Amino acid sequence: MTATETPVDNGVNVEALLGAREALTAAPEAASFRWRAMCEWQNGTHSHSEVEGFFGLGEEQRHRTRFTFDADHPQIFASEDNGATPVEYVLVGLASCLTAGIAAVAQNRQIQLRRVTATLEGDMDVQGILGIDSDVRNGFSDIKVTYDIDADATPDEIKAIVAQSQKRSAVYDIVTNPTNVRVEVV
Amino acid sequence: MTATETPVDNGVNVEALLGAREALTAAPEAASFRWRAMCEWQNGTHSHSEVEGFFGLGEEQRHRTRFTFDADHPQIFASEDNGATPVEYVLVGLASCLTAGIAAVAQNRQIQLRRVTATLEGDMDVQGILGIDSDVRNGFSDIKVTYDIDADATPDEIKAIVAQSQKRSAVYDIVTNPTNVRVEVV
Repeated sequence: MTATETPVDNGVNVEALLGAREALTAAPEAASFRWRAMCEWQNGTHSHSEVEGFFGLGEEQRHRTRFTFDADHPQIFASEDNGATPVEYVLVGLASCLTAGIAAVAQNRQIQLRRVTATLEGDMDVQGILGIDSDVRNGFSDIKVTYDIDADATPDEIKAIVAQSQKRSAVYDIVTNPTNVRVEVV
Repeated sequence: MTATETPVDNGVNVEALLGAREALTAAPEAASFRWRAMCEWQNGTHSHSEVEGFFGLGEEQRHRTRFTFDADHPQIFASEDNGATPVEYVLVGLASCLTAGIAAVAQNRQIQLRRVTATLEGDMDVQGILGIDSDVRNGFSDIKVTYDIDADATPDEIKAIVAQSQKRSAVYDIVTNPTNVRVEVV
C-alpha cells in the first residue's frame, strides 16, 4: 500500500449499474426483458442461429451488430462438426455469465482483477440422448467450474467475489433450477 | 405419391447413430462424455470462450477446429456489447439442440424436411440480477420456442417429431430440470 493509489478499474461502470438499479426500482415495469434467438436448420444436425434484437427498458433494443452461431454434432456422432455442440453453448453461457459477474462484483468491492480464467467440465452419459437407458438423464449429470483468478485481494476475498457472482448469475440460476419451456409448432 | 420415390435425406446418418446405440449398449462405459469450455475474462463484462477438446468413447476427442465465442452485456447495461449475452447463448444451445433432434427424428421416421426455423423468446425480469427484489429469480421466468416447419408430413406428424426431439434433447433437459454445478477457485 502506498499513499498514492491507482483507481481500481475492471472496465465495469458500477455507477451506471447502480443508477440503473435505482431507476428500475422506481419503474419496475422497465425491468421486463425478452431475449431472443432465431435458429435455421442447415442440414443434418447443423443449424445456424442469430441473435440481434431484444426487448427491455420498455422498448425494442438492438445489439451493436448481429451475432451468428453455427452448432452441430461432432464427427464421432456421424455429423460434420460444423460448430460447437448445443451443450457446449450452455457451458459458454454459464462461463461468461459468472465471469461478467466476477468483474462487476470486484469493481463494486474496489478490487483490481488482473486475470480471470475458468475451465468448465460438463459430464454426460450419452446413453440418455441415445435412448439406451431411460433412467439416464439427457443433460449433464454434473458441471464443474474451476476459476483461476489473479487479483489484488486475499484468497478469501476472491472466493467471496465468486460466491456473490453465483448468487446473481442468470445462467447459473437457469442451469441449477428448472425453467418452464413451451414448445409450439405453427 | 408416385411409384418412384426419392430417398428421404435430411443429412443425418441414422444407420451410424443406431450402430452407435448398439455399440454403447454393449459397452456403456464408452458413453461417459465430458464436454468442456475455457473462458478468459477480457475487460468489463466481456469474456472470450473457447471450445475444442472433449472426452468420449473412452478417449480424448477434438473438434475439427477450435470454436471461439465472445460474450458481453449490451450498451444499455453500460457495457460495450462485444458479443451476445450469456443468456442468449443458452437460447442458442436450446434452439440448436432441439433442431438437431428434429432432423434426426425425421430421418428415422423417413420424413423429408424442407425448412425448419425456430424463434426463441426468453422472458426475464432483471430486478433479479440487479438485486432489486430477492423474490425475482435471476434466470428466465419462461422460455417460448416456436417452430415453423415445412416437411413432407402431416401437421400431426410434424408435432410428433418435435415432441420426440424434446424428449431426447440434452439442453431441453438442462433448462427444464436442475443440474448440480460446483464452482471452485484454485
